[in-house]
Amino acid sequence: MLYFIGLGLADEKDITVKGLEIVKRAERVYLEAYTAILLVQKDQLEAFYGRPVIVADREMVESQSEDILKDAKDVDVAFLVVGDPFGATTHTDLLLRARSISIPTRTIPNASILTGIGATGLSLYNFGQTISMVFFTDEWKPTSFYPRLKENISTGLHTLVLLDIKVKEPDLELLAQRGKVEYLPPRYMSVAECAQQLVDVEEDLKEGVCGVDALAVGVARVGAEDMRIVAGTLGELRNQDLGRPLHSLVLIGRRGHDLERDFLEELAVDKEKFKKIWDENYGKQV
Amino acid sequence: MLYFIGLGLADEKDITVKGLEIVKRAERVYLEAYTAILLVQKDQLEAFYGRPVIVADREMVESQSEDILKDAKDVDVAFLVVGDPFGATTHTDLLLRARSISIPTRTIPNASILTGIGATGLSLYNFGQTISMVFFTDEWKPTSFYPRLKENISTGLHTLVLLDIKVKEPDLELLAQRGKVEYLPPRYMSVAECAQQLVDVEEDLKEGVCGVDALAVGVARVGAEDMRIVAGTLGELRNQDLGRPLHSLVLIGRRGHDLERDFLEELAVDKEKFKKIWDENYGKQV
Repeated sequence: MLYFIGLGLADEKDITVKGLEIVKRAERVYLEAYTAILLVQKDQLEAFYGRPVIVADREMVESQSEDILKDAKDVDVAFLVVGDPFGATTHTDLLLRARSISIPTRTIPNASILTGIGATGLSLYNFGQTISMVFFTDEWKPTSFYPRLKENISTGLHTLVLLDIKVKEPDLELLAQRGKVEYLPPRYMSVAECAQQLVDVEEDLKEGVCGVDALAVGVARVGAEDMRIVAGTLGELRNQDLGRPLHSLVLIGRRGHDLERDFLEELAVDKEKFKKIWDENYGKQV
Repeated sequence: MLYFIGLGLADEKDITVKGLEIVKRAERVYLEAYTAILLVQKDQLEAFYGRPVIVADREMVESQSEDILKDAKDVDVAFLVVGDPFGATTHTDLLLRARSISIPTRTIPNASILTGIGATGLSLYNFGQTISMVFFTDEWKPTSFYPRLKENISTGLHTLVLLDIKVKEPDLELLAQRGKVEYLPPRYMSVAECAQQLVDVEEDLKEGVCGVDALAVGVARVGAEDMRIVAGTLGELRNQDLGRPLHSLVLIGRRGHDLERDFLEELAVDKEKFKKIWDENYGKQV
């Protein structure tokens, strides 16, 4: 059996009791380590599980899946995924490959940022489609998220923005200079960087979607003891430092409830400004 | 400290290791038992936790929250919620009340049907707003969900439909006849009942949102060993029996991916028909 086991959001104790039982008895344990990260290191997981953990990078999952699936008809293999196993489509692909060679599969769900974001007090019922924000470079500033953001905004819905992480990125300069493959240190986009990129794109496209006065919520380390939630305009969030990763951002939709405002007002950079903008432009039936 | 602890979706072992540690040491343990249910009974939870569990019905949470919050400044109180604690807004309300009297709170996230639904192979990124479906009666057939469903459909997005549960409903007939309060047995809406109601509403409103040929997925007992997923038209799903609760339904959006089709085709009532309708009407850029 191939088990897809969600690890939740923060640390080694966010695995479910059921998931932990499977990890302890599985023949091999893989950790998917490229779409999200826990806030603890692999050795901490291994110590807690009492088991060795094989880190599966994107290449292994996408091109060498036969190693992961090997013998899984007869023995139990655990494939650990930070958050919930089906937050990312990559794992659907692995599941389909298992199914095609008659390996039975089972999923152990867990918390995902898609619902953990409820900790902001924003109603999960009022979220539209989720978007991803990648690190812009001088040459590459993809704005494919913008039409989706606009769809959500025009229906009055909140948008969860998932922020880029870069792990195991080859150092292209070093590769070109010396033909040597070394990896850059991991990078995790911050709320401030995301807010800045949104504002930059708005300045180019000008459709009233994510300008400096749009209300948003920045969150860091959802589910952890040092979770932080900061509400404000994108203009304000550009200058907020929420500390270590992972960060996410919600662009607030205009179909907000008073309960959502009351919850967030307390957590705003500037409470009066937040309430004023909300009362003027949000909390409406769109 | 007041802890909001998610229990996940299926049974007593879906609690996280962190959540279980808190339950074991908390002074009082409440179980919210009116927005969702686990597939196991309270006594099974109590045996697993080694602790008594107080069932908190809607009335207790909404009108007698002072009992729940009592002494929570000084002692640990655990408030258990099936799924993730912030799937339903009611708990935001309880958290705000705690905050207003300076009781510290913490949330332990868990799997929710909002992400567990990823087990259908449908990409969570392509879901629009979630809707709820209540049991229709002869006099009361609320169609307030229909405009939201239409918004999702017109943007090409999938819609998760959460199905009604009725627990601790007073027997009004008995109350009128004999002035006696007794409760009706619990009722849980099935996929078949939901599909029928959707088709009925479409016959009245006729905006091409949820007719007999619309593709949908019915799911039962997400996260449990006997989870079932059945894909088909609403016309077909009206006649499918997915067994014991809880059930949910997804109305498929037209902006589908081939990977989603491939995943669901295998689980279709009529594979050929499913593929034909999908290839003609779905998997398009809307």
